[in-house]
Amino acid sequence: MGSPFISDVPAEDALRAWWDACATAGCPDRLEPVTVSLDAAVGRVTAAPVWATRSSPVGDAAAMDGIAVRAADTEGASPTTPLRLPPESYTVVDTGDPMPADRDAVVMREHVHYVDQAAEIMAAVAPYQHVRSIGEDVSAGELLLPEGHRLRPVDVAASAAAGATELVVRRQPKVAVIPTGDEIVPIGTPAREGEIVDTNSLMLVAQAQQAGCHAWAADIVPDDVSAISAAVRRAAEEADVVLVIAGSSAGRDDYTARVVSDVGTLAVHGVAVRPGHPVVLGAVHGTPAVPVLGVPGYPVSAALTFDIFTAPMLARLEGAAPPHRPTTSARLARKLPSVAGMDDWVRVRLGSVRDRVVATPLPRGAGVLTSLVRADGLLFVPAAVEGHHAGEDVAVELLRPLPEIERTIVAAGSHDLILDLAASTLRGTDPLLTLVSSNVGSLGGLATLRDGLCHVAGSHLLHPATGEYTLPYLDELMPDRELAVVRLAHREQGLLVASGNPLDIGGLPDVAKRELRYVNRQRGAGTRVLLDHQLARLGIEPTAITGYGREEPTHLAVGAAVSSGRADCGLGIRAAAQAFGLDFVPVAEEPYDLVTDAANLTDPLLAPLWRLLGDADFLAAVERLGGYRTTESGRRIR
Amino acid sequence: MGSPFISDVPAEDALRAWWDACATAGCPDRLEPVTVSLDAAVGRVTAAPVWATRSSPVGDAAAMDGIAVRAADTEGASPTTPLRLPPESYTVVDTGDPMPADRDAVVMREHVHYVDQAAEIMAAVAPYQHVRSIGEDVSAGELLLPEGHRLRPVDVAASAAAGATELVVRRQPKVAVIPTGDEIVPIGTPAREGEIVDTNSLMLVAQAQQAGCHAWAADIVPDDVSAISAAVRRAAEEADVVLVIAGSSAGRDDYTARVVSDVGTLAVHGVAVRPGHPVVLGAVHGTPAVPVLGVPGYPVSAALTFDIFTAPMLARLEGAAPPHRPTTSARLARKLPSVAGMDDWVRVRLGSVRDRVVATPLPRGAGVLTSLVRADGLLFVPAAVEGHHAGEDVAVELLRPLPEIERTIVAAGSHDLILDLAASTLRGTDPLLTLVSSNVGSLGGLATLRDGLCHVAGSHLLHPATGEYTLPYLDELMPDRELAVVRLAHREQGLLVASGNPLDIGGLPDVAKRELRYVNRQRGAGTRVLLDHQLARLGIEPTAITGYGREEPTHLAVGAAVSSGRADCGLGIRAAAQAFGLDFVPVAEEPYDLVTDAANLTDPLLAPLWRLLGDADFLAAVERLGGYRTTESGRRIR
Repeated sequence: MGSPFISDVPAEDALRAWWDACATAGCPDRLEPVTVSLDAAVGRVTAAPVWATRSSPVGDAAAMDGIAVRAADTEGASPTTPLRLPPESYTVVDTGDPMPADRDAVVMREHVHYVDQAAEIMAAVAPYQHVRSIGEDVSAGELLLPEGHRLRPVDVAASAAAGATELVVRRQPKVAVIPTGDEIVPIGTPAREGEIVDTNSLMLVAQAQQAGCHAWAADIVPDDVSAISAAVRRAAEEADVVLVIAGSSAGRDDYTARVVSDVGTLAVHGVAVRPGHPVVLGAVHGTPAVPVLGVPGYPVSAALTFDIFTAPMLARLEGAAPPHRPTTSARLARKLPSVAGMDDWVRVRLGSVRDRVVATPLPRGAGVLTSLVRADGLLFVPAAVEGHHAGEDVAVELLRPLPEIERTIVAAGSHDLILDLAASTLRGTDPLLTLVSSNVGSLGGLATLRDGLCHVAGSHLLHPATGEYTLPYLDELMPDRELAVVRLAHREQGLLVASGNPLDIGGLPDVAKRELRYVNRQRGAGTRVLLDHQLARLGIEPTAITGYGREEPTHLAVGAAVSSGRADCGLGIRAAAQAFGLDFVPVAEEPYDLVTDAANLTDPLLAPLWRLLGDADFLAAVERLGGYRTTESGRRIR
Repeated sequence: MGSPFISDVPAEDALRAWWDACATAGCPDRLEPVTVSLDAAVGRVTAAPVWATRSSPVGDAAAMDGIAVRAADTEGASPTTPLRLPPESYTVVDTGDPMPADRDAVVMREHVHYVDQAAEIMAAVAPYQHVRSIGEDVSAGELLLPEGHRLRPVDVAASAAAGATELVVRRQPKVAVIPTGDEIVPIGTPAREGEIVDTNSLMLVAQAQQAGCHAWAADIVPDDVSAISAAVRRAAEEADVVLVIAGSSAGRDDYTARVVSDVGTLAVHGVAVRPGHPVVLGAVHGTPAVPVLGVPGYPVSAALTFDIFTAPMLARLEGAAPPHRPTTSARLARKLPSVAGMDDWVRVRLGSVRDRVVATPLPRGAGVLTSLVRADGLLFVPAAVEGHHAGEDVAVELLRPLPEIERTIVAAGSHDLILDLAASTLRGTDPLLTLVSSNVGSLGGLATLRDGLCHVAGSHLLHPATGEYTLPYLDELMPDRELAVVRLAHREQGLLVASGNPLDIGGLPDVAKRELRYVNRQRGAGTRVLLDHQLARLGIEPTAITGYGREEPTHLAVGAAVSSGRADCGLGIRAAAQAFGLDFVPVAEEPYDLVTDAANLTDPLLAPLWRLLGDADFLAAVERLGGYRTTESGRRIR
């Protein structure tokens, strides 16, 4: 148990082993039934069938406004031989009125003429015309709802119509979340290096609440076996399921596994799921015993293990079907390797480009919670599959409805803050409109556009031979494509240095000469090309730059590295320096352009983006980011 | 305004007219922003972009348990030339620990051997191996979420990691529901004929709550213009949207339209939507003005107009995308006529038969709420389309997830209570397993089976020429199909008569002779065939039976008609008499059989059904229903 080496149990086997262990330990198979009022029953699961005890309607009723008649009395009426019914032969009724005892049909009021007291009609009617029969909706004695049905508003309304005033349902499940770890601090605490804000409790409690549970987080427990054991025992007295957040260290994982062994049965330690591997599954002994789950501390793992293990357990306790996400078919934007033997849950962005849904994998680290925030879908790669090829059709679980994905402008290329600002501004105007950007560097963006996987590529790619930006690359990459290039803005590139520039960095020569710690951008990034160009111009070898191999994917990540003091400088845009309160040593001004198919200039989906580039308020907001010149923004360059 | 003749405005135009009228009247376009704690923000919509104010991780951190080293110090290490690092050259780290200032890589602990104090490694490592860079998840300054985003658990957790302790969101919308009508009585009141239980308020409040609103129902208001006006004004002072349930009578609809004119602007009265036609849309004047919707009183109309009009209005006020249901393609089981010029929302049952999803339309009356309860999907037939042919492929909005539909046993044919009981028992055992029955009569069920639209047909069809049940019809209808026939039970058929049999009905001859009011079953029903057979045997003409033309679709509906006193008798099973406390005059015992493809006897989907027919507890429950003999239940007849 104390071993750091945990097993790789397939998810399905793990779930079964957990259920078996819980059953053996004496966990209830189902939560007990309770009788609740109808409004309290919405969202709960029936614990018994609902039989109608009353018919609806309770008697025959008029289905139209008009007059109730005996059908037999109307025989012979026609446009040429109108028939006048004396007052004693008809009754005026409104829709829903009970049918008078001696009447069996209704003539619509539009078809009745009153002549003195008589009602004149132009057509005979059949028995039961425009009459709602007793029990048309539901008859007493009929099965309205089976056991195991999660009640929707319409179900409780129908139950009320069928005579119910309360319903027998499984009681609401209770979930306790226990955060553990010496380095975990509550939200709101200014976390120092090495401390981790307890975002997992917040998330897991909210996930359990969205699953219909009563859920709460306990106080943070330090890394101490007996303290964790006590907290788990205490939680098991109140809750139906206990989640222990194990933190990411193997040391702490072992604590949870050991604690589960100590207080009950350890069923599984380690599942063949990525992210989510170091899961602990077991049962806390007691009366009754309670299922316990050790949740990995990495936030993506924590979120996904809720879906994979906790949600099915909760559904089982309620006797209901577990939640399910709809799927769509999508074309994979790039090759996706996957480790055989591990179920892989890959977060993807989705966009509809040229009438096909395209899936672009997001960063796969279990610590990158933003990958789940930005994901439009989850691509499940089962243990038996070793990944997928680029362009392959894959099934993706949807995290966002398809119509929203179809109204998404997909941008790829160099990272720029203007695109972030545009994304939020567009959404604020039209809640259905989304702009997503993949930070794959300028060259990556152009390749993505070439492959039909994005609408817009953001590029500031210097062509060293000509000194021109972006345009020469288009001729090389997409010679036959009718492309348009729209200027987003000019922006200042320079060295991001610590506030006050304490090392007195004057430019790239200092970086080489004084062996300063540099932080670089990834290959294919326009800023990397600019660096290489500047180094060549200055006659500096890349190997002379300490940290040339440290690659970050965005300007802001470079800013973060400098701001933390782990690097002395890095090339980036002035807006990134401004965002971190860093100093900025200018190196060059460059144009940043949007490349797109010419047809997209008139596409309704993209129209709001082009309009935005001419909007004075928006451009003023851009200038406020720092280092941007918008005098040419929105101009078509080609 | 007072006119009973209302218009047919297309839904999209109606929605636009409503929004325009609301804007003109001074309704806010969006709800005001409020700042709330992170846990209170889940489910709300961002009113401003969320920018990261802190990087996560806050500094470089170990991504594995092991030792932190300087990558440069490991050069040359290999399996043949292991390298020993002295204690001052490494630091033991756990996952998540901050990287010591002078280290830039981590060696996994599985790859470290300790020799005295030295750490022996077998391979050189690259800089930043197993190091999580500062900002790997999110960098300060980065856009985390746009405005107009409905917050999920993962979003608030990521916001917390990015430095947020509270979020700016649109405040929760408030919805007031006003039931109106002299004949409306609160739930729990024993409704008399002509009274209608107020199930709509319960449903609409629950629908609004499920849409994330604070919602409440006002007291029931009588049919009085000034009382309704006062209630609407009062509600508009508290709520962001006011729903007035208009009742089904045109009289009362007019009240709502008139009230809306009186207290504000009437934008639309009548939409080209079925069910849902008599909708009223407008705005209540005030500071601010408030959107008001007159909801039709028929429950299906009430439920659907919430989806079609209220939900988009609420989404607009929150600045978010309206909810959306996934769709599936399905084969239409029968011809579906539809009125041109009206959007038609048809409720359908779905089942997967022979690997194709089949859609069977449910009753289309706006009063049949059970059609919505039983619906697995909604088939939208736009105004421009005049229905669909049987067998056509149609797109269906899903009300139940596809995996549940794929685990549904589809039965069609004669109505029998055993199937209801089986449906609930199966679900109680396995929450993913559903059994649905369409009451289309025995002959209809066999035709449905023949057409590949159900798994099982329930039949008790007497073949008058041979006196045999069901089997002769199979040879006629499906001569080349390999079918199996499994006995469900024997059951008693007889005349359902009032409790105590006050008319002293002895049998069918009495019905003809004494002109008693009979209630019949529909054509193709086994009970109808039995009646015709008995009449022929007795030499009675159908025309001699008063009410022969009054058709009801189930035994229970016949029981309801007799129980209400609107009919004196009708042929049906003893269980239906027992359900209503009626007396029963036996006429015949008959076998009720399940017909299926022989292959289905070993199909895993249907296996639980066949098992159930051998279960002693279940058969005992069947006998308790009354009039059933289960001695042959589960036996294969053919």
